[in-house]
Amino acid sequence: MKTASMAASLLIPLCLCILLLRGASAVSDQQEAGRRDSCDRIDRRIRALEPTRRVDSEAGHTELYDDRDGQLPCAGVAAARITIQRNGLLLPSYSNSPRLAYIVHGRGIVGVVIPGCPETYQETSSSSSQEQEDDERRRRGRRGDEERRRSSEGEEEEEEETSRRSFEQSIRDEHQRITTVRQGDVVAIPAGAPFWVHNDGDSPLVAISVHDVSNSANQLDQTSRRFRLAGGQARSEGRQRYGEGESSESETERGGEESYNILSGFDTELLAESMRVSPDIARKLQGRSDKRGNIVRVRRGGLRMLRPATERVTDEEMMRGANAAAAAGNGIDEAVCLMKLRENVADPMKADLYTPNGGRITVLNSQKLPVLKLIKMSVNRGVMRRNAILAPHWNINAHAAVYATSGSARLQVVSSEGRRVFDGELRRGQMVVVPQSFAVAGRAGDEGFAWVSFQTSDGAMNAPVVGKSSALRGMPADVLANAFGVSREEARMVKFGRGQELAIFSPKSGAAARRRRSPGHRDDGVLAAPA
Amino acid sequence: MKTASMAASLLIPLCLCILLLRGASAVSDQQEAGRRDSCDRIDRRIRALEPTRRVDSEAGHTELYDDRDGQLPCAGVAAARITIQRNGLLLPSYSNSPRLAYIVHGRGIVGVVIPGCPETYQETSSSSSQEQEDDERRRRGRRGDEERRRSSEGEEEEEEETSRRSFEQSIRDEHQRITTVRQGDVVAIPAGAPFWVHNDGDSPLVAISVHDVSNSANQLDQTSRRFRLAGGQARSEGRQRYGEGESSESETERGGEESYNILSGFDTELLAESMRVSPDIARKLQGRSDKRGNIVRVRRGGLRMLRPATERVTDEEMMRGANAAAAAGNGIDEAVCLMKLRENVADPMKADLYTPNGGRITVLNSQKLPVLKLIKMSVNRGVMRRNAILAPHWNINAHAAVYATSGSARLQVVSSEGRRVFDGELRRGQMVVVPQSFAVAGRAGDEGFAWVSFQTSDGAMNAPVVGKSSALRGMPADVLANAFGVSREEARMVKFGRGQELAIFSPKSGAAARRRRSPGHRDDGVLAAPA
Amino acid sequence: MKTASMAASLLIPLCLCILLLRGASAVSDQQEAGRRDSCDRIDRRIRALEPTRRVDSEAGHTELYDDRDGQLPCAGVAAARITIQRNGLLLPSYSNSPRLAYIVHGRGIVGVVIPGCPETYQETSSSSSQEQEDDERRRRGRRGDEERRRSSEGEEEEEEETSRRSFEQSIRDEHQRITTVRQGDVVAIPAGAPFWVHNDGDSPLVAISVHDVSNSANQLDQTSRRFRLAGGQARSEGRQRYGEGESSESETERGGEESYNILSGFDTELLAESMRVSPDIARKLQGRSDKRGNIVRVRRGGLRMLRPATERVTDEEMMRGANAAAAAGNGIDEAVCLMKLRENVADPMKADLYTPNGGRITVLNSQKLPVLKLIKMSVNRGVMRRNAILAPHWNINAHAAVYATSGSARLQVVSSEGRRVFDGELRRGQMVVVPQSFAVAGRAGDEGFAWVSFQTSDGAMNAPVVGKSSALRGMPADVLANAFGVSREEARMVKFGRGQELAIFSPKSGAAARRRRSPGHRDDGVLAAPA
Repeated sequence: MKTASMAASLLIPLCLCILLLRGASAVSDQQEAGRRDSCDRIDRRIRALEPTRRVDSEAGHTELYDDRDGQLPCAGVAAARITIQRNGLLLPSYSNSPRLAYIVHGRGIVGVVIPGCPETYQETSSSSSQEQEDDERRRRGRRGDEERRRSSEGEEEEEEETSRRSFEQSIRDEHQRITTVRQGDVVAIPAGAPFWVHNDGDSPLVAISVHDVSNSANQLDQTSRRFRLAGGQARSEGRQRYGEGESSESETERGGEESYNILSGFDTELLAESMRVSPDIARKLQGRSDKRGNIVRVRRGGLRMLRPATERVTDEEMMRGANAAAAAGNGIDEAVCLMKLRENVADPMKADLYTPNGGRITVLNSQKLPVLKLIKMSVNRGVMRRNAILAPHWNINAHAAVYATSGSARLQVVSSEGRRVFDGELRRGQMVVVPQSFAVAGRAGDEGFAWVSFQTSDGAMNAPVVGKSSALRGMPADVLANAFGVSREEARMVKFGRGQELAIFSPKSGAAARRRRSPGHRDDGVLAAPA
Repeated sequence: MKTASMAASLLIPLCLCILLLRGASAVSDQQEAGRRDSCDRIDRRIRALEPTRRVDSEAGHTELYDDRDGQLPCAGVAAARITIQRNGLLLPSYSNSPRLAYIVHGRGIVGVVIPGCPETYQETSSSSSQEQEDDERRRRGRRGDEERRRSSEGEEEEEEETSRRSFEQSIRDEHQRITTVRQGDVVAIPAGAPFWVHNDGDSPLVAISVHDVSNSANQLDQTSRRFRLAGGQARSEGRQRYGEGESSESETERGGEESYNILSGFDTELLAESMRVSPDIARKLQGRSDKRGNIVRVRRGGLRMLRPATERVTDEEMMRGANAAAAAGNGIDEAVCLMKLRENVADPMKADLYTPNGGRITVLNSQKLPVLKLIKMSVNRGVMRRNAILAPHWNINAHAAVYATSGSARLQVVSSEGRRVFDGELRRGQMVVVPQSFAVAGRAGDEGFAWVSFQTSDGAMNAPVVGKSSALRGMPADVLANAFGVSREEARMVKFGRGQELAIFSPKSGAAARRRRSPGHRDDGVLAAPA
Repeated sequence: MKTASMAASLLIPLCLCILLLRGASAVSDQQEAGRRDSCDRIDRRIRALEPTRRVDSEAGHTELYDDRDGQLPCAGVAAARITIQRNGLLLPSYSNSPRLAYIVHGRGIVGVVIPGCPETYQETSSSSSQEQEDDERRRRGRRGDEERRRSSEGEEEEEEETSRRSFEQSIRDEHQRITTVRQGDVVAIPAGAPFWVHNDGDSPLVAISVHDVSNSANQLDQTSRRFRLAGGQARSEGRQRYGEGESSESETERGGEESYNILSGFDTELLAESMRVSPDIARKLQGRSDKRGNIVRVRRGGLRMLRPATERVTDEEMMRGANAAAAAGNGIDEAVCLMKLRENVADPMKADLYTPNGGRITVLNSQKLPVLKLIKMSVNRGVMRRNAILAPHWNINAHAAVYATSGSARLQVVSSEGRRVFDGELRRGQMVVVPQSFAVAGRAGDEGFAWVSFQTSDGAMNAPVVGKSSALRGMPADVLANAFGVSREEARMVKFGRGQELAIFSPKSGAAARRRRSPGHRDDGVLAAPA
């Protein structure tokens, strides 16, 4: 009884802080305004989605979830699964809409450049080393060539050149903060912010990524556009237009069109002068003859970058370093430039909700990761034991794009007219949208079920039908008795049948008992109970 | 002179607090973003709307305002009038958009379940009574049956059952706060929050209800969807799609489709296990054979629920009770869970604006009822004496759906091109939309005019053309003289003709005098002057 | 080195305060939600726009930028250039969307009436003068006529008339604050607020004005509607519907329809009674026979209005006067009613960014002009020396409508697929949209280039590709080396080639040198270096 009320007092604030926030500052309301595509089709039928297109690159591939049923456009999202091979580099790009990515497998390094923020990782020449001196020597050599070429072009402003050289001598390299990621991490990437990913692990890095194209941050139409800062010709895979079913097909055909990085769109001379590099280098940046695709193999020697010694930088260290750098600056930019962009949701100890025989759910909203206030999305990570029940509920203020990371579940989604628009298995690697207000319930399969759910509000809330703090619990028993035509006693059974359970219900006692009797049964790996 | 400036100082803050709020926190701006349907047709013509469809239920009926002119879709709202017979119960449902309802007639009890909020009305077994003991005895009897059935199904976990029983023994019933309503009350129902209504009065309960489907809280398309938590087959009356005129017709036909409650969409077995009830009970909840419709008659014995002794709970009492309950909890949820959802706008003493021979207006915005910040709607209640003039004005930041509750008025609505798009009588029971920016003016009929106006902003503001704080008053007389081609003196007459009057102007003195000469004339009942 | 870092520390806060603001209060996000028109066409081609329609009035004309390429509708804006002849008066009107106007040439007086705000400019009869007495005498004469006419109409309420007369005697005229404007000023006009403009200078007043029709303040559809409060028949030039290309054509035809002021839409009798003026005056207000158009010539004697003695009121004086007036009131309305609506962006000393041989940029966002938080737009004013380079960058959170005020530039705009959608000259008087996320770069022509850019966010941010705080600078050199397939050394050249330069780059040293050798070369007038 006590633990139950403790669990309740834990969870209620989770839900309510957000509700509070919405009322008070209305921050989380905004992204919702842009949903505009018709949701007619989802009133009829929803399917479990598999990736429908695959784009191969030198060191990985991207799989895109297209969708004829309109569930993704109705929810205003676009989804892709990205696989980066060992030592691969996903080239820098930005988008007109924000996105969240969940690392399904592997580890790597992510660099998100927040425009206007300082380069807080800086290496000056005082930190001299053999390699640096080598570099310096080589640079002087090339500089000579460069100077000779430029001299022949015309007048040379000596003072400028000198200042540049002295600048380069004092700073060897500098860049913005980088973030290590590993399985179970969520990474937030704001609209318009370029990012790159490097797999520095020993196995492929796999991430599922969801764009919120209906987000208020996107002032363009409902098209997910990718602006690549580097790389050569590619099929325009990042370009998904959501609208009519037919145009979606023609879009797929248009997918075959040539697509280049944005630098290639500028005049080479203008680009060269803008960057103060030779036209040869500018041409390389434009990469029109680059055939490696969007994910390239890092050359021998690996990817050198500045980062603290420990493999996994603690948040405290990161803050310390950045604060020091910011202290030299103006202090205003700290709030945004130092925002954490990554948070782990896989650690069972961090679960927000735990049902002993059922499973657990970890909520990641803007209370925990403030940058989500900007992104206006949130994530739930759930893990269910075999045959556990996902309690009937609906999403109050968001759509949810649910991706199965392991196991499977039989899910049922119900529309406003009581029509079961989805009734099927959601298996590892598949995705399904649970639209706002639609009711959903389900049962984990024999291998359990683990999922990650991307929600289109930074304070997504759901309303359970039964159990603790549920819709039916909130009504007088007599209202239920009259509404359902049952006895007062039966109404009370409906209200209190699940006692204090919430969100994930333990399976029928029979099943639980059977499991206990077969001690050899192996629990699903992901289901290590917290503590 | 003094009273005039007092009236002005009363009203100006009314308008400005909101403007302030918008500037400062921009809270009220948001719902406006979603208006997206074409408003082409309203540039041509608007009509006074009557309900076009009626859906009958066991104990009441619902009348829907459909609309071929597109004024409701342009404003992004949907409207219905609900009549609940004596002892009727409107079954619990929720919607993808928020709504405000005005109680036109009668009284009743409304239960709005805010998901995640605690059940603050609780009856424990210590509050023992004869009835309770009877119940207990009956329950034990049924429990026996139930146990026997379940035992035959398989293993029984005794400890679980015991804990449930002890739980039920200690808590007889509990539910969230309930609210009594009566004629003149406005009730706010957030998106996604289920609610039910019971008519416990002696006459029909009639409410006019407006959904804000373009509200940012709705991430689905512009369709007003109703998700019913109980009840059987019904025509899908709550389903109004706003878009093309043609689809609107086909929608009306689709209105004949079967619609069930959302529980009916789940597999009966899954539902039963989710709720820990027998499949028989689960089938009753799904109500596929229930023919009572959406408003049912409460069975003999009436609707028992927990509530404080006094018929009309004072706000102070409500807060006290809820605070006590919350104090036992965590304190965080108070802000939302204790929000008032009801406010009376009919009391003449609460009028915000009063013109002795003209009438009065009561404004209900988020300053007065904070939950409207969430709902992003507001309400004006107006009452005009016979022949009084509704001063020319326009709505700055909202659409207004105006419903006539008694009497009639001749209204004129003018579009941007100076075209009179509406010129007609608005009679009791009719509704008309005054779109944002469109100018409106009118005159009450011989029986006076009383209306309620639902506005799509929680801080709706209007701009008077003439009178106190008006557009023309704010301009130099010489600008008016040159603009209108009148003399400086005439311009001053235009500016100051209505002195300090605001919003409702007294009729021509002749009419007023005539009225005074016929002392036998009965004032419209609603027009009792405040004090 | 020191000045560079100072420049950086100046600019970074500029960018970041906004980012901060967005994160913290999300105020600036909202207007973005409404962009809904298809942006398909801008993925193919954008053109430099010239005005396509011209509407002539008695004392000026309006030129409208129509657009077959869809760049304006994609950005959700509408643009017009207004020319008011000497002594002309742009008649009062309001719109369903907010707008910003930049004064390209001349000077004048703008009156923006904020509904609900007090008339803080007031002249009472104690400030007696010969002219006033004359007026008074004339008024008494007319009053007599008027009274006689009204007496013949019916009963007269003596007390009312008396109070009106005493009121008019004590107050000669009163109106809201007026604002003087001159070349280089930006004026903000909120949605629904009527405004008028008077050219009291010696040369034409020319303004370029951009409406944000997709702004959340507009709850109507994507049509820019103008509601005129005065004036006669006019072609409906303010009416621009953005949607399909075809409907845009038919709209142009519909442009020929008659359009009148909104008062003309009301019944003359109702209007007369509303205003307590004679039907004759009411008919004049309706102006159905007025042929002067939308900009009229002020009659002999000029436009008399109340204003402080000094020609250009300082902000301090304005605040003082208004504060005094407000002190007599309630104090609540100060925040909105006293908001500054004008700010100068042409003063070189106020430039936020200055590159000695390149040019300067002045940013006007809600940090500098708080009313922009309401308007949700911002402005950049830029001036570039001949052949200076506009550094490659993209707009993160806004569209930009760029208007060339003098000189010309060759601009290139690049879409997500690396396609150069615009590559051409932007000359004085032309406009082009740089859509959100699209990359842009350019070079000033031989006469330099000066522009004003209207952005659809009150805290518009852009991300430079190279230079200080740029995307490429924020990435490790090795990431660039691998991404572009260049050497580590070349990558460093790309990163550091432009040192600490930002936004505007000085031209190739060759060009600079050539310019130095021709001392007779006259700098573009607007290009006086700050200090």
